[in-house]
Amino acid sequence: MIYVSLISYTPDPERTIAAAARVSTSPVDTKEISKQLTPEAIDRLFTHLLTSGHLSTFEHASFTFAIEGISRVTSHQLVRHRMASFTQQSQRYLSLKEADYITPTSISARTELEPKYHDMVRDCHRLYIDMINAGIPAEDARYVLPSAMVTRLVMTMNARELLHACSLRLCLRAQWEIVELFELIKAEVESVAPRLGAELKPKCYRLGYCDEAESCGIFPTAKEIADEKERKG
Amino acid sequence: MIYVSLISYTPDPERTIAAAARVSTSPVDTKEISKQLTPEAIDRLFTHLLTSGHLSTFEHASFTFAIEGISRVTSHQLVRHRMASFTQQSQRYLSLKEADYITPTSISARTELEPKYHDMVRDCHRLYIDMINAGIPAEDARYVLPSAMVTRLVMTMNARELLHACSLRLCLRAQWEIVELFELIKAEVESVAPRLGAELKPKCYRLGYCDEAESCGIFPTAKEIADEKERKG
Amino acid sequence: MIYVSLISYTPDPERTIAAAARVSTSPVDTKEISKQLTPEAIDRLFTHLLTSGHLSTFEHASFTFAIEGISRVTSHQLVRHRMASFTQQSQRYLSLKEADYITPTSISARTELEPKYHDMVRDCHRLYIDMINAGIPAEDARYVLPSAMVTRLVMTMNARELLHACSLRLCLRAQWEIVELFELIKAEVESVAPRLGAELKPKCYRLGYCDEAESCGIFPTAKEIADEKERKG
Amino acid sequence: MIYVSLISYTPDPERTIAAAARVSTSPVDTKEISKQLTPEAIDRLFTHLLTSGHLSTFEHASFTFAIEGISRVTSHQLVRHRMASFTQQSQRYLSLKEADYITPTSISARTELEPKYHDMVRDCHRLYIDMINAGIPAEDARYVLPSAMVTRLVMTMNARELLHACSLRLCLRAQWEIVELFELIKAEVESVAPRLGAELKPKCYRLGYCDEAESCGIFPTAKEIADEKERKG
Repeated sequence: MIYVSLISYTPDPERTIAAAARVSTSPVDTKEISKQLTPEAIDRLFTHLLTSGHLSTFEHASFTFAIEGISRVTSHQLVRHRMASFTQQSQRYLSLKEADYITPTSISARTELEPKYHDMVRDCHRLYIDMINAGIPAEDARYVLPSAMVTRLVMTMNARELLHACSLRLCLRAQWEIVELFELIKAEVESVAPRLGAELKPKCYRLGYCDEAESCGIFPTAKEIADEKERKG
Repeated sequence: MIYVSLISYTPDPERTIAAAARVSTSPVDTKEISKQLTPEAIDRLFTHLLTSGHLSTFEHASFTFAIEGISRVTSHQLVRHRMASFTQQSQRYLSLKEADYITPTSISARTELEPKYHDMVRDCHRLYIDMINAGIPAEDARYVLPSAMVTRLVMTMNARELLHACSLRLCLRAQWEIVELFELIKAEVESVAPRLGAELKPKCYRLGYCDEAESCGIFPTAKEIADEKERKG
Repeated sequence: MIYVSLISYTPDPERTIAAAARVSTSPVDTKEISKQLTPEAIDRLFTHLLTSGHLSTFEHASFTFAIEGISRVTSHQLVRHRMASFTQQSQRYLSLKEADYITPTSISARTELEPKYHDMVRDCHRLYIDMINAGIPAEDARYVLPSAMVTRLVMTMNARELLHACSLRLCLRAQWEIVELFELIKAEVESVAPRLGAELKPKCYRLGYCDEAESCGIFPTAKEIADEKERKG
Repeated sequence: MIYVSLISYTPDPERTIAAAARVSTSPVDTKEISKQLTPEAIDRLFTHLLTSGHLSTFEHASFTFAIEGISRVTSHQLVRHRMASFTQQSQRYLSLKEADYITPTSISARTELEPKYHDMVRDCHRLYIDMINAGIPAEDARYVLPSAMVTRLVMTMNARELLHACSLRLCLRAQWEIVELFELIKAEVESVAPRLGAELKPKCYRLGYCDEAESCGIFPTAKEIADEKERKG
């Protein structure tokens, strides 16, 4: 099971973002700006910044998460976000004593396939342990470990990259495990910054249409919209 | 006068960095790791990470500064750091009512030049105001403003980039105004994270020699070391 | 006058981008993919990548420009693009013998202001030269130079960042000098990569509406669209 | 077997880097600078830039590689370089018909372990194919694939990041497969840019000592140097 915990973040993140935004156009000093900002003013600023695409001030608030129980399938995708900082558990130096791994529901739903899957992953892990006991370095023995094996990492993302990453990873066409991960990330952000957390949503909400080949149903695709327009004349 | 104020930062930044570093090699969970870290363990980890060049975990702690009273000379250099986030006061939308500007001490030390400098900067500012009053947009009138005019910005940098930026900008061969700026930045970091703040120092302390064309005297240049070696035989 | 010259670029940039895109979904090898790509296939792939927002493959083609004759107003904005590489002429080490500067047309159109502007900029430059002759270092004398003074730089951007930067900087609400600069950049790209060059356009073409406070007229703002809809019932 | 092929790069990369460097301190224009640069001048500039740590001009030359036959162990590490662009073969949309995989030599050297390793990897691949034939999506079936399975990607890195990545990845303490990969990358760069290629070397050559816990023997560690000094008195 995926586990996400917000271990640290810029205090009062929404006020920090809003105060920075005001610096650009206000003659008074930054501390004074921050003091004067009411929750309503912060809310209005957020709406303005997001609809006008002025996202750079969202970089002034950062969030650090402990992430546990994701597969190497998902960690490999996750670290593709380059506007983020990652510290991942090493498989070079650390041997994995337990066979902790992820089972996709499409497999666990199939009674004829599920036991084969479990057996295979555990057999791989057993050979991994045997090889380590026989003197093979952990960094080489791990080649036999399936992508299903879980890993643990610490990730820091600023609010701008969180908006971007969630726009991609909360899309229901994204890979299911990474969707689950970002739903947990969104929940953690919402618990300390509800206004910001509410903005973490799939790209279609911002685009007004689905830009995938096939829509999940929330929004029609651009093609479907064009076809509908033509049909109506 | 330059004014730097730390308006926000990752709480307990040194513990956050050290805990992230432990995740890489420890089997226990991140919250547990963080709890177990004594100040001595954090200190030892910092020494190890810095001497072995494992700097990526320093990215998990961020610092947000309000910076006021730097010239456009310096802000233009400052924003060249790409691993940082900046929100700068706009000269497009905001007209500068006062002639706030920086005077280099090399000029203020020269009694025959100083009054000419002050007059010129103020004349420029007066023409700027006149042009705005005559209907020229602020974004065009500003072309006549000298580089000495001050600006204000909010800057967020993580600890890794602070180490890097300070290694360049605290070098006494750097431009004097940016040296002053980073001395104030270092002081702000030291006030909340003394262990980290102490590591913010010019590159020569890490290299063990000066890599500039001419040394300020703290460390000899690589060439001077080689020559000395040869002389000694 | 601004001068932009493409001094180097990834050869056959559109083929390089398209070939990289195919690697993601094709089992054959990269060289084979590249050979098989017809111009029509490249064109279709471009359309697909751009409408589906799969922009990462555009990073595989880079363009290096020599840029001369832009003001320090504009170079200060330009270097805010962090996904780019800049090497700028130094005002620390190089003294500017000529008073080369930009005059905004809003000023040159006003016969009563124009001569005052020219006199002021030249007076500043004269004091700059006088101070250098009197022994003030160039790095300090430059504080008196107006933002209008021109600079020269080399800039490398990949095609993804060019798409992004042009979406912002070709907007007619952007500052006029940076619009001119990016029109020249677009022309240089078009001369060697017409399919890509044609995609370098302001953000409204991609959004389908204007997200600025006031539209230049090409597209209505989101608010105007909503109002029109309501009016129609 | 790992296969690396340079599919595209900035033409005349060393001249491009050197010309950009000259812009910073020369009053003549960029094309003129480039023409005037002799091979000897380029060589001297390279030495100067590298010893003084002025590496930013190396960003103006980019290299695009087709990389095939690396394991997912190595691709996961490789994409941690954030100053680079990657397009990787998708395991979501593409099913892997062949069991192509990497065998560490520490395992192939052990006659009692090697056949077990081969059997296990192939059994995993067979179950993967069986699950796909039974209707499991490729994106889920791949959870059972070992990290040894090979992948293919296109990578673009500029010369500055190549210097940095090679300083880490050519270190003999790095993981053996990524060392092999970067030796091939270095060879490709050397074939078109020998002066630059020669500078792609492990960090110890630049540091003058080994900063790992234990040295491979090329350079002593910092501790060994200090101990030796003390012993000598």
